[in-house]
Amino acid sequence: MTALRLGIAGLGTVGGGLIKLLQPDQPLGQGEFEIVGVSAQNRARRRDVDISRYPWFDDPCDLAMQPNVDVFVELIGGSDGTAKKAVELALRRGAHVVTANKALLAVHGADLAKLSESHGGKLLFEAAVAGGVPIVKALKESLRGARPRAIAGILNGTCNYLLTEMEATGRAFNDVLADAQRLGYAEADPTMDVGGFDAAHKITLLAAIAFSALPDYEHVKIEGVDLVTLDDIRLAGKLGYRIKLIAKAERVDDAVSLHVSPALVTLDHPLASVGGALNAVMVDADPVGRLTFIGKGAGAGPTAAAVAADLVDLLEGRGGPAFARPVSALAAAARAAPSEFGRFYLRLRVQDRPGVIAAVSDRLGREGVSIESFLQTPGHDGPSVPIVLTTQPVARSALDAAAKAIETLDAVVEPPRFFPIEEADDRARLWS
Amino acid sequence: MTALRLGIAGLGTVGGGLIKLLQPDQPLGQGEFEIVGVSAQNRARRRDVDISRYPWFDDPCDLAMQPNVDVFVELIGGSDGTAKKAVELALRRGAHVVTANKALLAVHGADLAKLSESHGGKLLFEAAVAGGVPIVKALKESLRGARPRAIAGILNGTCNYLLTEMEATGRAFNDVLADAQRLGYAEADPTMDVGGFDAAHKITLLAAIAFSALPDYEHVKIEGVDLVTLDDIRLAGKLGYRIKLIAKAERVDDAVSLHVSPALVTLDHPLASVGGALNAVMVDADPVGRLTFIGKGAGAGPTAAAVAADLVDLLEGRGGPAFARPVSALAAAARAAPSEFGRFYLRLRVQDRPGVIAAVSDRLGREGVSIESFLQTPGHDGPSVPIVLTTQPVARSALDAAAKAIETLDAVVEPPRFFPIEEADDRARLWS
Repeated sequence: MTALRLGIAGLGTVGGGLIKLLQPDQPLGQGEFEIVGVSAQNRARRRDVDISRYPWFDDPCDLAMQPNVDVFVELIGGSDGTAKKAVELALRRGAHVVTANKALLAVHGADLAKLSESHGGKLLFEAAVAGGVPIVKALKESLRGARPRAIAGILNGTCNYLLTEMEATGRAFNDVLADAQRLGYAEADPTMDVGGFDAAHKITLLAAIAFSALPDYEHVKIEGVDLVTLDDIRLAGKLGYRIKLIAKAERVDDAVSLHVSPALVTLDHPLASVGGALNAVMVDADPVGRLTFIGKGAGAGPTAAAVAADLVDLLEGRGGPAFARPVSALAAAARAAPSEFGRFYLRLRVQDRPGVIAAVSDRLGREGVSIESFLQTPGHDGPSVPIVLTTQPVARSALDAAAKAIETLDAVVEPPRFFPIEEADDRARLWS
Repeated sequence: MTALRLGIAGLGTVGGGLIKLLQPDQPLGQGEFEIVGVSAQNRARRRDVDISRYPWFDDPCDLAMQPNVDVFVELIGGSDGTAKKAVELALRRGAHVVTANKALLAVHGADLAKLSESHGGKLLFEAAVAGGVPIVKALKESLRGARPRAIAGILNGTCNYLLTEMEATGRAFNDVLADAQRLGYAEADPTMDVGGFDAAHKITLLAAIAFSALPDYEHVKIEGVDLVTLDDIRLAGKLGYRIKLIAKAERVDDAVSLHVSPALVTLDHPLASVGGALNAVMVDADPVGRLTFIGKGAGAGPTAAAVAADLVDLLEGRGGPAFARPVSALAAAARAAPSEFGRFYLRLRVQDRPGVIAAVSDRLGREGVSIESFLQTPGHDGPSVPIVLTTQPVARSALDAAAKAIETLDAVVEPPRFFPIEEADDRARLWS
């Protein structure tokens, strides 16, 4: 077998991890792959792998154009700019592309998949979603006889780490974020992660595969963890819930809903015990039932191993269309709003004076929102106190209307905030 | 594309489910597959699928021999007899075989894989392990760039259901088993399941793939759930643990250990919340870290969907060697004993009289076994009471010696029983 010749662009965490996996003492270093070129922003940067024996390219686009590069491995990142240009160049000349770039694929995935199909190179991206968790292959290949109905996941390790730390230490969001930045767990500009955009990129890709739909990033409703306060975590905890940033895609008849949002899960929910930087994906599919996948969503090892899985697929002649089906078979799915009906958690901050709770209850009642549990705890400094409650199942629109009415009350000192409650599996139906 | 022509032998739960998945209103019923023959023990049996329009074969071996059968789908079961004969016939003439038969593969997997390699047909078995959970593909393809170190799983839904029901209802093993048999969740002869043999077949297959080793069923140390009493569940619960039947394979240097045994997990262990008939598999691999897969391990839908995944792989030209590597590349791995060092749970039944605990402690101390927690609860009828304790990390051999010494004490009324404690992830290392 002739070796598959790789051009690796981007030598950060993942690129470095991949080069390690290709060394002679590793399963992938047995002569089946050859690195014929590398490229990064800074050749001289200290790395814990020796790159001096690989041909160097200042410009990843030059590397992508090399005729001896069978597979262009794009680990640069970013939805546009150099990464996009280099990937296009590689695909246009019929080379394969393996990438971990969720932003690029969420925004330009359909065009790139088309390019790959018309020129004959494959476009694979296991590493783009949930790091070492092989969810892309599971959806593309293992669930082909099934019909996915819904996907819900913890897809951003940084957010999950921040929430886990806030709960464990009782420290506020900005505090914990600053620490994470110092330790290198969060970017200097954390917007992509904490704003929910990274998770939105990823759920866009999973939904496209699962529902045979064109990637539709513009359609994702995005709420980030920056909306979650320490009060939320503490009070939700007292009510028996944990807060997670959940990315969700659902098929609603022929339409698809896409949503990233903080959500409450009970402690026996499969996602509740997914702590720290772990990622998790749950897929509900007919007739398989619910599948849950959990693993490390980031880091050199897990992500490089996911890139490696794509490389082995190429080596052994596997790897179908980028989104499991040819682009011509992907529908521009109608857009549905995120689940409109369910239980919700509502947080208010009010002045601590008589009559406030009665007024809040009244505004909820007027919109037909029934309260399931209610919590006000003493011991707060300052002139206002947090109040949280969970609702009976209700339409989101009704709660939205009630929240707007509550916001106008004098005693309410900040806009009410509400998050959905994700229900756990119905254990009685496990044998169905 | 010409349709892949299927001969389906065995029309029980899974066979019926598969035929449903191949109907025109299903993803697999779009003309890519054609059923050219079916076979089962009883043609006239009432089924909820109509099999009258498929050519019927009384003898599955006849079906396996039909030249128009591209894929022989074996859903008969059993490690020997008809299933083995029919699979061999199909492979010998170069047909593909897709099977859910873990017993057959655990015992004869290497020979059958060799047959498949020498005659050119593939041998695929996603459905043989953990039903709808795509763990076989994950190990065969997604983890090819990684080095699995250990696999631990809940691989028998019947056992997990029994343990879950005992805990939930406080009813004894035989009671719950009788109910499960009446409801069709357990076989009339439950030995394969409750004795741990089915889980042993499955871990044999996963270990072969993960460690590039010949399947070595004879080597599995097997202890079943029939060893677990209601006292164990109740008292382990009071100590903060849940009991699961865990199948485990570990690489110990160049050797492999294989073990099926009841084991205790803390409530925050990834396997603790896997209830009812669910299955789960955890894989620890370098440099991926720990991956956890959870889903329905049995039933028509999940298992048929797993068979379907193999069929799609064949249709699209995927599907490598049965155990990921050619049989010639599989090692006859040295056999290691199951993990010899760790914390254990020990259960005694003693006469309730002074001095017993001192005597037990003494025998433990003599072998260097330190007690971590100890529990005796009042309120038992009869002349004897259960005592349970957990140990500090200790060699299994030391505990074994102590248990034998304890058994000789007058006041000890039944042989002490001990189960390993499975430790949860070290949360501090999640970012490593």
